[in-house]
Amino acid sequence: MKNFTSELSVGAYLKAGANKTVRTLSQLKDLYSNREEVNRILENEDPVLYEVFEMPPSPKETDLLVNITVLHAGVVGEEPFMTKGHFHQDPDTGEVVIGLKGSGILLLQNRKGEIQEFPVEEGKVSYAAGGWGHRVINTGKEDLHFLAISGANMIHDYETAVKLNFKSLPVENKERISANE
Amino acid sequence: MKNFTSELSVGAYLKAGANKTVRTLSQLKDLYSNREEVNRILENEDPVLYEVFEMPPSPKETDLLVNITVLHAGVVGEEPFMTKGHFHQDPDTGEVVIGLKGSGILLLQNRKGEIQEFPVEEGKVSYAAGGWGHRVINTGKEDLHFLAISGANMIHDYETAVKLNFKSLPVENKERISANE
Repeated sequence: MKNFTSELSVGAYLKAGANKTVRTLSQLKDLYSNREEVNRILENEDPVLYEVFEMPPSPKETDLLVNITVLHAGVVGEEPFMTKGHFHQDPDTGEVVIGLKGSGILLLQNRKGEIQEFPVEEGKVSYAAGGWGHRVINTGKEDLHFLAISGANMIHDYETAVKLNFKSLPVENKERISANE
Repeated sequence: MKNFTSELSVGAYLKAGANKTVRTLSQLKDLYSNREEVNRILENEDPVLYEVFEMPPSPKETDLLVNITVLHAGVVGEEPFMTKGHFHQDPDTGEVVIGLKGSGILLLQNRKGEIQEFPVEEGKVSYAAGGWGHRVINTGKEDLHFLAISGANMIHDYETAVKLNFKSLPVENKERISANE
């Protein structure tokens, strides 16, 4: 990757040369527990859940990944749109999440199943240390924009997330969210 | 390091448990070309040039460093206050700089002596790829606050910066800055 500078917005990031990757429901349908609802939605459309804006070219091991993600607002059944969620492996490095717009949560879960959650909103930074799987969930009613920074030397480990039944959202949380609406 | 969340301000960072490291002129006097002026200032006081706020405990190799720096406004002769500036070595990893408050520049220089400069101000992110030494310079009239993120596995190489005569500020830049004042 090359040196770059950009305003912290999707438009500016695209102008600075970022590539866009789109994630749709059909690619991520296993994230959601309500299979019937997933199938019902997919009969009509394949909605975009989120888009990731990333600087080319392919990063070297020594680079940091510096991506803007736009996670759209919406639900599948009772579960809000969320990112795939992953652990890092070999090395199991940290990840930084900085909210830019909208509101959501960064849900962390370690391999013992312990859970932490942090706010994702403008002006807040959160850090997921190595060993903590992480997923962002849009709990608001508008698009959630956030910056994520991680070492490019890490490998996404999605399998552990699946094995652990990496949580979409703890139950107590659902209550808190509806209380805020 | 542990998981953490914080607002992007010094006060919130301290509340979240950050440690403060202070850098004074006497520690960094070799950065400035006007030795007479350095000595004149140090006869009267040893001003704080910048403070770094960093989360404890000591980071592991797999952590990311996520620091807030407050670089004060001021000059030594004609040179504005600046951070020490460093290359990374082994591995020569990237670094991300996000402006929070005030205005300055991120000055990049590679081992061939090529120079790039990027703005450091609220809402802007810049990336220094591996192989580029980097220094932040406060070109404004108020404190410059910025967030810096790098791999904790890297070793600061200050010696190469000294050998290369890592620039305090290119001459053409001084003109641009006074034009903006």
